[in-house]
Amino acid sequence: MAGIADVAALAGVSKATASRALSGSGYVSAATRERVQQAAQELGYVPSTSAVSLATGRTRNVGVVMPRLNRWFFAEVLEGIQHALLERGMDLTLYDATPGSAARRRIFEEFLPRRRFDGLIAVGLEPAEAELDALLALGKPVVSVIGAQERTSVVTLDDAHAASLATAHLIALGHRQVHFLGGGSPHWPHVEAARYGGYLDQMERAGLSDHAVRTPSEPSMPAGFAAAVDLLSDVEHRPTGIVAACDEVAIGAIIAARRLGILVPSQLSVIGIDDHVDAEMFALTTLRQLPREQGKSAVSLLMRHLDDPDADPLVMRLKPRLVVRGSTGAVAGAASAAVMDSGRGPI
Amino acid sequence: MAGIADVAALAGVSKATASRALSGSGYVSAATRERVQQAAQELGYVPSTSAVSLATGRTRNVGVVMPRLNRWFFAEVLEGIQHALLERGMDLTLYDATPGSAARRRIFEEFLPRRRFDGLIAVGLEPAEAELDALLALGKPVVSVIGAQERTSVVTLDDAHAASLATAHLIALGHRQVHFLGGGSPHWPHVEAARYGGYLDQMERAGLSDHAVRTPSEPSMPAGFAAAVDLLSDVEHRPTGIVAACDEVAIGAIIAARRLGILVPSQLSVIGIDDHVDAEMFALTTLRQLPREQGKSAVSLLMRHLDDPDADPLVMRLKPRLVVRGSTGAVAGAASAAVMDSGRGPI
Repeated sequence: MAGIADVAALAGVSKATASRALSGSGYVSAATRERVQQAAQELGYVPSTSAVSLATGRTRNVGVVMPRLNRWFFAEVLEGIQHALLERGMDLTLYDATPGSAARRRIFEEFLPRRRFDGLIAVGLEPAEAELDALLALGKPVVSVIGAQERTSVVTLDDAHAASLATAHLIALGHRQVHFLGGGSPHWPHVEAARYGGYLDQMERAGLSDHAVRTPSEPSMPAGFAAAVDLLSDVEHRPTGIVAACDEVAIGAIIAARRLGILVPSQLSVIGIDDHVDAEMFALTTLRQLPREQGKSAVSLLMRHLDDPDADPLVMRLKPRLVVRGSTGAVAGAASAAVMDSGRGPI
Repeated sequence: MAGIADVAALAGVSKATASRALSGSGYVSAATRERVQQAAQELGYVPSTSAVSLATGRTRNVGVVMPRLNRWFFAEVLEGIQHALLERGMDLTLYDATPGSAARRRIFEEFLPRRRFDGLIAVGLEPAEAELDALLALGKPVVSVIGAQERTSVVTLDDAHAASLATAHLIALGHRQVHFLGGGSPHWPHVEAARYGGYLDQMERAGLSDHAVRTPSEPSMPAGFAAAVDLLSDVEHRPTGIVAACDEVAIGAIIAARRLGILVPSQLSVIGIDDHVDAEMFALTTLRQLPREQGKSAVSLLMRHLDDPDADPLVMRLKPRLVVRGSTGAVAGAASAAVMDSGRGPI
């Protein structure tokens, strides 16, 4: 395979000039750069990037720290990041940092300090203040996706607003016994607190604070299913509407309702947050966010910090959009509304 | 931050010796290596890996080419690969190569030829013979996960055996109208052909070749749902048993059955292949594979090729295990079996 010496010889320049022309760092005249690039193309020369990165101080590589991969949200964000980096000719090094794992400790203590990247995108890294300190100490730009950190640029859904809109949607349909399903997981406290807060806020505005109830659930379909089976089996205190902390929990609740013979939406309305890939199949009404776009936006923010190391951190707080499908509907009649008002379910 | 010169000074050796001692390449006495390592630890020195990789010819990095991330199987494989690499102190560069995309072309034409890795793991890269040629031309070890390539080491489920066991399970429960749901997607023809072949083979052994019917479906929950709604709405030709090409299709079929008021398993048995994270919630009987372990095995195979570049390719064909849950049961009585034998469904 052709080396840089071959390229330099064919272009009639020194190796150092050829290297500068191909790496894009340091001064080379336009004519020389073109001659060198033509020579490199003729010879099928591909620069060794280890050499390029020593010469330029840039690795053309971005590190991505993810708490997990096997979830719709995280996989979508990762695909968005990957595609945006590909467009810019940059590599992606993945650090799959399961919360609380030994692997995560090794990533923070051993892998990240190698600094094999120009910058980092940290996805869902909360709460981990100490870890954020460690990332910032690397002296490389860091962008966060979701989370409440204010020390880095952040791309995040407006979580409180999403839950508030979801709750308002059910209240507008006449629901008063509206419960919140989700939260209480140790790993994403800021997101969950913001969503629960949006729900509480909207219940209060409607004068329904006394009806506000939260049933905890991990943010997964099976956890939502299990929590909803318990919640819905208690006929005395069964809600007519559920605001789920995310779509996977909402879908779990719909499956639980079917299992218990409770009709959705005539006996129970369920609304989620996400617009998960499976939401349409379950006719789930939800607040749509676009995690793939969040991944792309994170790359844009990172590029801004790479271009200007003194740029101030930015917060991109994205607005969700209500997508109405079949899982939500009006409560059945004024009579049953009166019954519900006395604190009992419709059955 | 401490540089290699500081480490060398503290250890009382030359920079070249310190570098050799830390990179593990070239001869250094055990005593010297220990002194240098101690000095590096004292100073908190982290080697710049660009320099290390130029010195040793090893990047301590593995490239992973994936057709997509947002699927249970691929995310699990990726987590397995990541954890096995972390244990070995190696980085993972991700190439998310959606089939047919412009990004995929760029990965093959521009990113992979940079050779920023010691070896590659290609997950689900079939059919793409030309792409495999391109990978092998890089002159780095390549290991495949799933697929029928025989030119690299491969880790794969024994797909034909899995489908054969699934079909045998339904036949043993008295089912004769057993359909295959899945296949016909352009992206994983070898896997799908092997599974369909295992089904056909088992139907033939049971003298049921005349009852063998395949309904195509993309390998996803919504696609399985849509295909099953069509299949099950045709009461005349409705099967009593469905062998689904994968769990996501099987779960789609179970949801379709519920939507149509068909009882699972008393009117319809459904079996999948995977043991997907959601299988338990849907009480799905399935053939379990462990994609996370497949990812780890792929790393082991790759290490073997890195240690011995002349090692012959190995094929690890993994055996699935039958996990019986509530989605499969005996067909209802001998009488209905006779009716079914006449080519009609149980309803």
